[in-house]
Amino acid sequence: MYQFFVEPTQIQDKRVVITGNDVNHIKNVLRMKIGEEIAVRCSGDDKEYRCGIEEFAQDEVICSLRFVREEGVELPSRIYLFQCLPKADKMEFVIQKAVELGVHEIIPVAAKRCVVKLDEKKAQAKVSRWQGIAEAAAKQCRRGVIPTVRMPMNIKEALSYAGGMDVRLLPYELSEDGMKRTRQLIEGIEPGKSVAVLIGPEGGFEESEVEMAYTAGVTPITLGRRILRTETAGLVVLSWLMYRLEA
Amino acid sequence: MYQFFVEPTQIQDKRVVITGNDVNHIKNVLRMKIGEEIAVRCSGDDKEYRCGIEEFAQDEVICSLRFVREEGVELPSRIYLFQCLPKADKMEFVIQKAVELGVHEIIPVAAKRCVVKLDEKKAQAKVSRWQGIAEAAAKQCRRGVIPTVRMPMNIKEALSYAGGMDVRLLPYELSEDGMKRTRQLIEGIEPGKSVAVLIGPEGGFEESEVEMAYTAGVTPITLGRRILRTETAGLVVLSWLMYRLEA
Repeated sequence: MYQFFVEPTQIQDKRVVITGNDVNHIKNVLRMKIGEEIAVRCSGDDKEYRCGIEEFAQDEVICSLRFVREEGVELPSRIYLFQCLPKADKMEFVIQKAVELGVHEIIPVAAKRCVVKLDEKKAQAKVSRWQGIAEAAAKQCRRGVIPTVRMPMNIKEALSYAGGMDVRLLPYELSEDGMKRTRQLIEGIEPGKSVAVLIGPEGGFEESEVEMAYTAGVTPITLGRRILRTETAGLVVLSWLMYRLEA
Repeated sequence: MYQFFVEPTQIQDKRVVITGNDVNHIKNVLRMKIGEEIAVRCSGDDKEYRCGIEEFAQDEVICSLRFVREEGVELPSRIYLFQCLPKADKMEFVIQKAVELGVHEIIPVAAKRCVVKLDEKKAQAKVSRWQGIAEAAAKQCRRGVIPTVRMPMNIKEALSYAGGMDVRLLPYELSEDGMKRTRQLIEGIEPGKSVAVLIGPEGGFEESEVEMAYTAGVTPITLGRRILRTETAGLVVLSWLMYRLEA
């Protein structure tokens, strides 16, 4: 079953109108036929509008609503992944996987040891590309919302933004607290609480950055005894949060 | 700190001898110097032999043992990932990530809906390549053992092999049991018990394959309400097992 996202105004009583790039995708790439069923979602209301294709117009695909599935697919908590800019195209991988695992927002962070540097113009182009990857992943894994990819922040901005969240976790390999303490922390997160997860770059956070994070109320956790790559670390924490929070 | 694997015979009292491809890697790629420290492991004994480089010989790097760290880095359970052959180079990704997450063995499985077909000769070449990826990942994340990549099995062979393991889990999106039951199952796994994780191909297992697995004593679990890609599913289960089992 293919899924598409629409704006609330595109759902009119029993009629659902698909517009934009999805029209070409449905007509010429997927080559769908009249009567075929699709899943339509309004990013944010976490309901599934199951529709049948009725008519192919010039720039629209007109569908009729068959039924609405009220049962949501979103986690009960909003999870914010603060990912320090990794090398090469690893950010694309992190975004695709994080969307599958239920992330709410992804915030690229420029830490001191990040090799990749983005100026304003490059950052805008990157974020626009990354947002497209988030949308494609959200369709594919049938999310109820399209997670947002924010413009990159520096550590100070990231910590200030994370300050608005209920729980803030930072996996740190030099953390002295063991797995038992980490499990206690994760188990203590009540469904509904928002969670910030801060992942360092390839070389790790600098000690001064970790100090800043502690001062800002961020809690260190361990990810076990092996050394995880930066693009793996966030996925492990998201998996653990899913394990804890999924109803 | 770079890590290398040796055979038990290469550790002789206070002298550790590195041979094979690692010699060129240490001398010409990493350009290490006399006195530099490296971590050496014997795949399987889960101890770290911290050494200093003493001498560069023709085909050997001779090191002196500085101290032994007895504290292990391996999970207390052996985890066997049965991964149905995915498309393109996704198997390489699965192997790299599974090694980071503490897997003990990876068994490629040819299920009915696998698009990739491997004859004996192709399979041997692939497995040899995959074993190299497992070894590189084990060095990088500083595992205590090099996980083995087995020759591909069909479903019947895979279920028979999994029959020797204490716990057998199969994530199945049509499973009627919810997350609560899945958590109970994971929490019921005692450290030390061996665990088989069976991951279907892109199109999922066929119903007849799932029936065969149930008959063989495999337990279905859910991975939440979103649809995960085949290469993501195993990583989520491995993350959950790490969360449960890491001491």
